Amino acid sequence: MTRIAILGATGYTALELMKILLHHGEAEIVAVTSRQEGQPHIAMIHPSLNGRLDLCLEDLGPAEVAARAECVFSCLPHGASAAVVSHLVDAGKRVIDFSADYRLNDAEVYAQWYGQKHADLKRVGKVVYGLPELFRSQIPSAQLVANPGCYPTSAILALIPLLKAGMIDLKSIIVDSKSGVSGAGRTPKVTTHYPECNESISAYNVGRHRHTPEIDQVLSTVAGATVEVVFSPHLVPMDRGILTTTYSQPISEANEEKVLRTIRDFYADEPFVRVVDHFPGTKDSMGTNFCDITARVVRGRVLTFSCLDNLIKGASGAAVQNFILMFGYPETTAL
Amino acid sequence: MTRIAILGATGYTALELMKILLHHGEAEIVAVTSRQEGQPHIAMIHPSLNGRLDLCLEDLGPAEVAARAECVFSCLPHGASAAVVSHLVDAGKRVIDFSADYRLNDAEVYAQWYGQKHADLKRVGKVVYGLPELFRSQIPSAQLVANPGCYPTSAILALIPLLKAGMIDLKSIIVDSKSGVSGAGRTPKVTTHYPECNESISAYNVGRHRHTPEIDQVLSTVAGATVEVVFSPHLVPMDRGILTTTYSQPISEANEEKVLRTIRDFYADEPFVRVVDHFPGTKDSMGTNFCDITARVVRGRVLTFSCLDNLIKGASGAAVQNFILMFGYPETTAL
Amino acid sequence: MTRIAILGATGYTALELMKILLHHGEAEIVAVTSRQEGQPHIAMIHPSLNGRLDLCLEDLGPAEVAARAECVFSCLPHGASAAVVSHLVDAGKRVIDFSADYRLNDAEVYAQWYGQKHADLKRVGKVVYGLPELFRSQIPSAQLVANPGCYPTSAILALIPLLKAGMIDLKSIIVDSKSGVSGAGRTPKVTTHYPECNESISAYNVGRHRHTPEIDQVLSTVAGATVEVVFSPHLVPMDRGILTTTYSQPISEANEEKVLRTIRDFYADEPFVRVVDHFPGTKDSMGTNFCDITARVVRGRVLTFSCLDNLIKGASGAAVQNFILMFGYPETTAL
Amino acid sequence: MTRIAILGATGYTALELMKILLHHGEAEIVAVTSRQEGQPHIAMIHPSLNGRLDLCLEDLGPAEVAARAECVFSCLPHGASAAVVSHLVDAGKRVIDFSADYRLNDAEVYAQWYGQKHADLKRVGKVVYGLPELFRSQIPSAQLVANPGCYPTSAILALIPLLKAGMIDLKSIIVDSKSGVSGAGRTPKVTTHYPECNESISAYNVGRHRHTPEIDQVLSTVAGATVEVVFSPHLVPMDRGILTTTYSQPISEANEEKVLRTIRDFYADEPFVRVVDHFPGTKDSMGTNFCDITARVVRGRVLTFSCLDNLIKGASGAAVQNFILMFGYPETTAL
Repeated sequence: MTRIAILGATGYTALELMKILLHHGEAEIVAVTSRQEGQPHIAMIHPSLNGRLDLCLEDLGPAEVAARAECVFSCLPHGASAAVVSHLVDAGKRVIDFSADYRLNDAEVYAQWYGQKHADLKRVGKVVYGLPELFRSQIPSAQLVANPGCYPTSAILALIPLLKAGMIDLKSIIVDSKSGVSGAGRTPKVTTHYPECNESISAYNVGRHRHTPEIDQVLSTVAGATVEVVFSPHLVPMDRGILTTTYSQPISEANEEKVLRTIRDFYADEPFVRVVDHFPGTKDSMGTNFCDITARVVRGRVLTFSCLDNLIKGASGAAVQNFILMFGYPETTAL
Repeated sequence: MTRIAILGATGYTALELMKILLHHGEAEIVAVTSRQEGQPHIAMIHPSLNGRLDLCLEDLGPAEVAARAECVFSCLPHGASAAVVSHLVDAGKRVIDFSADYRLNDAEVYAQWYGQKHADLKRVGKVVYGLPELFRSQIPSAQLVANPGCYPTSAILALIPLLKAGMIDLKSIIVDSKSGVSGAGRTPKVTTHYPECNESISAYNVGRHRHTPEIDQVLSTVAGATVEVVFSPHLVPMDRGILTTTYSQPISEANEEKVLRTIRDFYADEPFVRVVDHFPGTKDSMGTNFCDITARVVRGRVLTFSCLDNLIKGASGAAVQNFILMFGYPETTAL
Repeated sequence: MTRIAILGATGYTALELMKILLHHGEAEIVAVTSRQEGQPHIAMIHPSLNGRLDLCLEDLGPAEVAARAECVFSCLPHGASAAVVSHLVDAGKRVIDFSADYRLNDAEVYAQWYGQKHADLKRVGKVVYGLPELFRSQIPSAQLVANPGCYPTSAILALIPLLKAGMIDLKSIIVDSKSGVSGAGRTPKVTTHYPECNESISAYNVGRHRHTPEIDQVLSTVAGATVEVVFSPHLVPMDRGILTTTYSQPISEANEEKVLRTIRDFYADEPFVRVVDHFPGTKDSMGTNFCDITARVVRGRVLTFSCLDNLIKGASGAAVQNFILMFGYPETTAL
Repeated sequence: MTRIAILGATGYTALELMKILLHHGEAEIVAVTSRQEGQPHIAMIHPSLNGRLDLCLEDLGPAEVAARAECVFSCLPHGASAAVVSHLVDAGKRVIDFSADYRLNDAEVYAQWYGQKHADLKRVGKVVYGLPELFRSQIPSAQLVANPGCYPTSAILALIPLLKAGMIDLKSIIVDSKSGVSGAGRTPKVTTHYPECNESISAYNVGRHRHTPEIDQVLSTVAGATVEVVFSPHLVPMDRGILTTTYSQPISEANEEKVLRTIRDFYADEPFVRVVDHFPGTKDSMGTNFCDITARVVRGRVLTFSCLDNLIKGASGAAVQNFILMFGYPETTAL
């Protein structure tokens, strides 16, 4: 049994995290924190937790959190997260950080894209990126894991096998992603106000989205050379799910069967990646920790199509997968 | 040609109003006002107006509005509306007020339900309720018209013929209404945040909704006796549309055919009420000024089902219908 | 470990059933049947089952099913279900029937509402209605359980405590229900074609819906006297969830606090009924086996509001709850 | 006044066409045809037309249609359309064909993509492609106009100015389109069954979609050289609207301001193309004949984003625009 604290428990990723952990017999949620909302019962914020989790939100400092929990999931926003996580790691706690704070290995890139100095400079570049499909061997011994972003997970999982196989031109990669609205968080804004975004699709933050350097960095690591993708996120009128379509130029003439086989072979032993022949819909993986991938070759281009639930495989499911690997539980429990 | 000013032009009813007026050859929009949003071009707030209406929002006082326009549509919130409208009416302007300020005939009932003293007491009880199907004869000469609420219009239109015919027990009326989210306005709130209200239906403000006394008042006027309805509004995951289901006890044994004929006869000459045999869906009247009504008798109860677009027949379409009657244009132009 | 067969596995209730059973360590799905669809892999029909359930659909007769499984869930349509279930029960199998075939105790009522003679007349009136909150004591020993309908569960759970307490007039009950589209099944029809039902709410089958006699029967049993409700179902543009609003006249003056306390006390020990103070949204119980209930007194009427997921507590979750009680597993496992 | 017949009036494009024509004072709808649905009143199929259009569907042959109408809009499916349209044109009628039959200039390409021999070979390659922004001068005198496809319109309008200016590499064009469900028509199918496609986005027919050769052909004409695009259509859970994102390699280093200015200048006099600075959402043009376009340069690539209503600018609005040009009415009436 592992005692768990969840920081920033009013958001959607925290909610999904709690729901998953409630199904994991070895996870005991001992504290849920929030600064903004007073100390109401968690079910006042998330009515779906009524009768399932009997805790009140608390405004706890790092020392108090460290005193109670062995493992901490931080769902705090970037900046705020590193400021707290650094203390928890110093106190010997194991932490899974949902924010972008520890994902980028370069403090300057962080400062450039996030518009602020990193709050825990000494750890930048030394934290495991918690994508089990890529860094499974490093996660069990990690004290701190940077949980991947939702868009990056969808793009990276689709492209890794092609990059590992040296199949595609690194300069040609286009990532056209479509996401449900929960990815924008739980704070009401005009852009996510129901009558504004319902029945409408639009692009946003193209060329400026903060997941861009994260995708670049991981793909570059995999490729062993600099990758800079063109990344276009789009907001889709649905609660959850991401579909990422990628386009790239093959190095030599591409063969659809071979492309699919390359991806299928790469993920043969992965419990949460499903390589399929049909075009997956986001609903196929909704509420699960699966990422569904297929590929096509069209007029000489290689196209991949990958779907996942942005709140599960794109956030809380991945976090539990990391938790499981860190604490040595069976990998698919509760997922 | 009539020069028109629209007060509080950043909301959804104002947007629909502008769209309709742009199709009315005799309406010239000369000013659109807002206090909150600075003075951006109207298309910055409502991108659908790009290339269609070339006006900037302005923060105008009543005198400035009166100097420019002959007819004013006030889309201001209750309280704020009467405070401005009173000056405009004093200045001789003709006004159609979207707020609830002039709908109730009793200042005490207003104070009780709206939690504030009325800002224009001298006019309370003397303003025409702008429901053409009931008060058509009074609208042409009115200087000020109180535009009906969306829920009241759907409930009242369904029940008037039955009350006029003395068919139903006044103490038995239940009004179960289902509304799209645009009825909640354009200000972002948690309850209308996409991932909260999408894929979910819930009741709200049951027994406390401010449209209750408005429904009571109009039905009482029609019945010539006190009517107090049980009113349950529900929020439905769709942009627009209201479906109101009413239940009432007939005075003597009810006959479905006779009930339907009574309603059909009553509205025989009304251009915007369609009495139908099937159960109407809100989509049938979406984007139009129609109200669709049918009725059933089930186990001795009389049931009505009425649908309208809350932003059109429930707000801006009705307002244009009033405008047309006030200024003597053909009743269906642009609607 | 219990060997399970699922008949009619191409529909939505079967899909949810399989998802739940896959999380129940003591349930082993050994056969999934379908007549219509050939013998494709189950994941060809339900892509969300990819990598989770490795079975092909089979067209099996009752004898073959009986030879393989100990427990059978029939998701066949009414009529077809009893025709097969009768053989399975004769063969000594334990069966949970999702269809309406064994819910009604009177073969004439069945014939009247379902337009056909019952296919297993000898069992009519002798089958346990599988609503654990009402018939928990009879379920463990039952060989055949009639799984309740989705609308009936939502209405009955809300009204039982009030009927048991003798609080409401049996002749006054109105049931206004709102359901997501999955309740209409997986066969494409114009009424459930996306562009037809999206962004629209409408009533349907009012006074003729087949769940009417089921609600009547169970409420009559509880009340010990004839109950005939007015039942109005409505189709809501969302995947799943039912919100049922009931209206009834109290016997003596009603007190909201007392009404709520009566319901809360009645369900104090029930794991899957949550009595709440706020108005529940269907999303609160989406994907769970919970039914959320609250109540209000408005102008002397008693109103209840109950939400559940039509595919879970309204179908497959309830079925698993019955399965668990029949086979003596801990009641909340996998739910 | 022009007498109009609409062939295949049960579909969505026909419905939108009728709604628009009802606002056009010079259009008189004299016949609406359908083979499948018997001869019910049009409002039985499209309840939104109740009280607006009093016609019954008829099963008319070309001669009967020709005897009644001056102008025919054919909303028949490809193949069936040419078979009828050829007779109407022979009879001297002016026709706007919504199907793909007369869009492609090469009968072999038609046969290859549509899997059938063309039914009116003698006219193939001689019909005006009804995109006013490109072929305005040819439309007024045309007897037969091929109304453009919805995806092609969105892609072509965005790319024309860049091709005309010689700015982009013809071999580099990727077209990633996202469409609402109404594009799939009104015939119920599993893929467009509400619970299947709601809350889900997926790609479909990538590399095989029949709009591919149409996009190729028009872009090739504009470029004066062969263009073959990679075209990926996606199905989005919303009623209507298309957002098309294109990616292309510039010939020389691209400048965002210059790209935008090029597009803006090109459409300076077009009444229905709005070049905007923000990322348009499909809702901005919903229910209108506008196409909204913007562009970005990201990491050296040129990206365009174009939105339109697939049923209006992508079908029926464009058709009315063609009708207006053919009959010499003012171009924006009713649109």
